[in-house]
Amino acid sequence: MISVWALPGIPEVQSGDDLAALILAALDETPLEDGDVLVVTSKIVSKAEGRIVQAEDREAAITAETVRVVATRPRADGGMTRIVQNRLGIVGAAAGVDASNTAFGTVLLLPLDPDASARHLARALRAATGAEIGVIVSDTLGRPWRDGQTDIAIGAAGVHVFDRLSGEVDSAGRPLVVTLPCIADELAAAGDLVKGKLSGCPVAVVRGMGRIVGRLELPGAASIVRDAAKDMFRLGADEAYRMGIEVGRAQARTDEEEI
Amino acid sequence: MISVWALPGIPEVQSGDDLAALILAALDETPLEDGDVLVVTSKIVSKAEGRIVQAEDREAAITAETVRVVATRPRADGGMTRIVQNRLGIVGAAAGVDASNTAFGTVLLLPLDPDASARHLARALRAATGAEIGVIVSDTLGRPWRDGQTDIAIGAAGVHVFDRLSGEVDSAGRPLVVTLPCIADELAAAGDLVKGKLSGCPVAVVRGMGRIVGRLELPGAASIVRDAAKDMFRLGADEAYRMGIEVGRAQARTDEEEI
Repeated sequence: MISVWALPGIPEVQSGDDLAALILAALDETPLEDGDVLVVTSKIVSKAEGRIVQAEDREAAITAETVRVVATRPRADGGMTRIVQNRLGIVGAAAGVDASNTAFGTVLLLPLDPDASARHLARALRAATGAEIGVIVSDTLGRPWRDGQTDIAIGAAGVHVFDRLSGEVDSAGRPLVVTLPCIADELAAAGDLVKGKLSGCPVAVVRGMGRIVGRLELPGAASIVRDAAKDMFRLGADEAYRMGIEVGRAQARTDEEEI
Repeated sequence: MISVWALPGIPEVQSGDDLAALILAALDETPLEDGDVLVVTSKIVSKAEGRIVQAEDREAAITAETVRVVATRPRADGGMTRIVQNRLGIVGAAAGVDASNTAFGTVLLLPLDPDASARHLARALRAATGAEIGVIVSDTLGRPWRDGQTDIAIGAAGVHVFDRLSGEVDSAGRPLVVTLPCIADELAAAGDLVKGKLSGCPVAVVRGMGRIVGRLELPGAASIVRDAAKDMFRLGADEAYRMGIEVGRAQARTDEEEI
């Protein structure tokens, strides 16, 4: 049995705020226990870390956060949807640059290193409470093939992000070779069910997943990101097709010259 | 606050079994309440519906379930990983054909209509218990850009699969136009945290999400599937690139003939 609840009473986070102190204050009624996992919306981590830029720079901010353009598509409003790989390796729309729930005229960038943010927070909460807890930093992302968004883990500390089932066998004795549940993403999703987008509750506690809590030095959420070279969807279909057309035309010209 | 637990004591499901009866028997100690959502692993739905075929036909079974090939890649074991769109519109590896936790020599196909299966089960459980509950049928899928798998909803009944936030505003008064959390997928993910792949617990109960439970006739999980025509990743990068090369070469030949 697991329980998931949102921490009430976390105030609007400002640049420079001590997130651990805000969370500890909100925990007053229900203290943390060994094995608890906190799911923290990346937005408040970004705010505490002062990752705010002026909104007139939104498109420039997206460009600055972009390492690689994966796919683009014109939007009905005249703008361009940009699916890009950002500094963190994460593929998503707008490089995680966020203009909702921020002050008018500003946008929020993702934390510089969400795994480090998670580790910093987990270490402070472990020290203050004595409880061996884990921390997930979550973000909301769309995905191919399915409408809508789900929350995923962009930072993690003190948790095994995967349930490693390799080496184990199923009920018929066959090895479960390809099954690698991404527990960190599933915890982020469970946290979103209680946090909501409008409720002003940016932190959830998940109790009952102690089996996945461990050392602060475990690999973080960066280890979930697949290498683009290994990814069958490293480029949008239209982008890859257009690249192929250019290459095909060049090949045909070369063939012609050789004849 | 939500609670999620796995139902103990569900026996190995056989073709023709009455799933509602098996679940009701397992519920003996904790009766269902209004607003509960059951997350049911698609595998037991398939087994109850007799969706078992001989394993020597595994590759043929994948081909038969495939509506459209999205991407392929040779595997180290000499086989071919096939990412395909199946009859249900769902894009995933091997068209949902499953050879784990089934009897040796057999594979399991997805339910013919998981939304109908969910509706049938939800109706029977509502009639037997008097509780207004919802049902999610879940499956385990990989995804682009991130390693590992998460559970998603391939069937749903009696629940709003999306939290429709359009028309609502964020804390600064701006409309939340593009936010459409896929609650059904997040519930499937939360269910996987307690069901596990090895524990023989194929059904989870989620309590505390009554706000998303509604009429049995609400749109099911089929409504989550994005139209391929609208999908920037409707084809693998290599497949789109190779298609572009062919078209580019043909274009060059046509240009040549016109000169």
